[in-house]
Amino acid sequence: MKWISTWGEHLGRRFAIIGHDVPCKGDFSLNDLAGGAGRLDVLLRAVNTALFVSHGIREDTQIILHLGGSGSRRIRFDGGKLRGVHPDERSIAGHVRAVVRSPIPPIGVWSEHSSGICHSGGGLAQTLDEWMQEGCQILVMDAEGSPLREGIEQTECFVLSDHKPFNEDEMSLLSRFGKVSIGSQWLQGHACIAIVHHILDGI
Amino acid sequence: MKWISTWGEHLGRRFAIIGHDVPCKGDFSLNDLAGGAGRLDVLLRAVNTALFVSHGIREDTQIILHLGGSGSRRIRFDGGKLRGVHPDERSIAGHVRAVVRSPIPPIGVWSEHSSGICHSGGGLAQTLDEWMQEGCQILVMDAEGSPLREGIEQTECFVLSDHKPFNEDEMSLLSRFGKVSIGSQWLQGHACIAIVHHILDGI
Repeated sequence: MKWISTWGEHLGRRFAIIGHDVPCKGDFSLNDLAGGAGRLDVLLRAVNTALFVSHGIREDTQIILHLGGSGSRRIRFDGGKLRGVHPDERSIAGHVRAVVRSPIPPIGVWSEHSSGICHSGGGLAQTLDEWMQEGCQILVMDAEGSPLREGIEQTECFVLSDHKPFNEDEMSLLSRFGKVSIGSQWLQGHACIAIVHHILDGI
Repeated sequence: MKWISTWGEHLGRRFAIIGHDVPCKGDFSLNDLAGGAGRLDVLLRAVNTALFVSHGIREDTQIILHLGGSGSRRIRFDGGKLRGVHPDERSIAGHVRAVVRSPIPPIGVWSEHSSGICHSGGGLAQTLDEWMQEGCQILVMDAEGSPLREGIEQTECFVLSDHKPFNEDEMSLLSRFGKVSIGSQWLQGHACIAIVHHILDGI
């Protein structure tokens, strides 16, 4: 599915999710994703739901994982280029682990690790800076925000947290952006993403 | 969250998902859920999204997995009674494997395996019979069906398939029930469930 703005630009959707305790370097066991890997499972389901439809991929969607355990690293999955990634948690985790075992690139330098998977140093602040430079509209998922409307006018970027709420530093970085809600109940991250896609698809 | 009908009945939501190739007996590896376990990963994400919200469980929701590989067995997860199940695929799979290793109960006999997890012989036909006897409204998820409306008047039961479409026998069983759609695109099962919850929550 491709979205074209009224000005003919090629639009897309982007998600940023914070993994507060997911190790950004070293190693972790694929058998303990919800434990030793710092609830990486939450991020893996977000990747799945952001990018995969039944028997296909949302080519216009990207998701950036922010790994905050023992430092910081970002991993970006780009639906338009992704190859060889299966939708189950363990498969996606294998790709994350391969990245985490490699050196962290400098902040702001996106290094391709495999087709459709890039990584970079830095954290949420860098992602927000990059998105603003690209002219994206940034929205923060918050159960107490304004209802998310249908339709899409420019590249829309959604920021959400993992099983932990945003910390004070993140709240400060995000305070300048609008908060949008998809209901009064706090849902799992991947469920939020499914509903955002549903609302923006508008079909 | 509890829903009460205008007649004061205690209402709930139910999902049935078919796992055409998931082994109903024997054993499988927790390291190969998307392969040797016949795409059990699809069903595990459905369990997760049907039952878990952020830091909580939907107590009024049940989901029945229909394991169709090498015979037939049903496994029911009941949000109102579930204990000790974590939301990641591997954790849920561990519970499914424990059930699959045990003898299949007779058709129609629901045997509790652990808190909130029961199993029974039989397949989709038995589930539909049981639901009809309880007076539930049964709806089939189909991208070409009628748009799912908001609100809930009685226990609503949704039937969906895994990565494979319903087969001819299933289509025949389901032909008498209404088809509902949440959009023209075929989504993953767990994404459908997230959107159904969102629409029925109506908030």
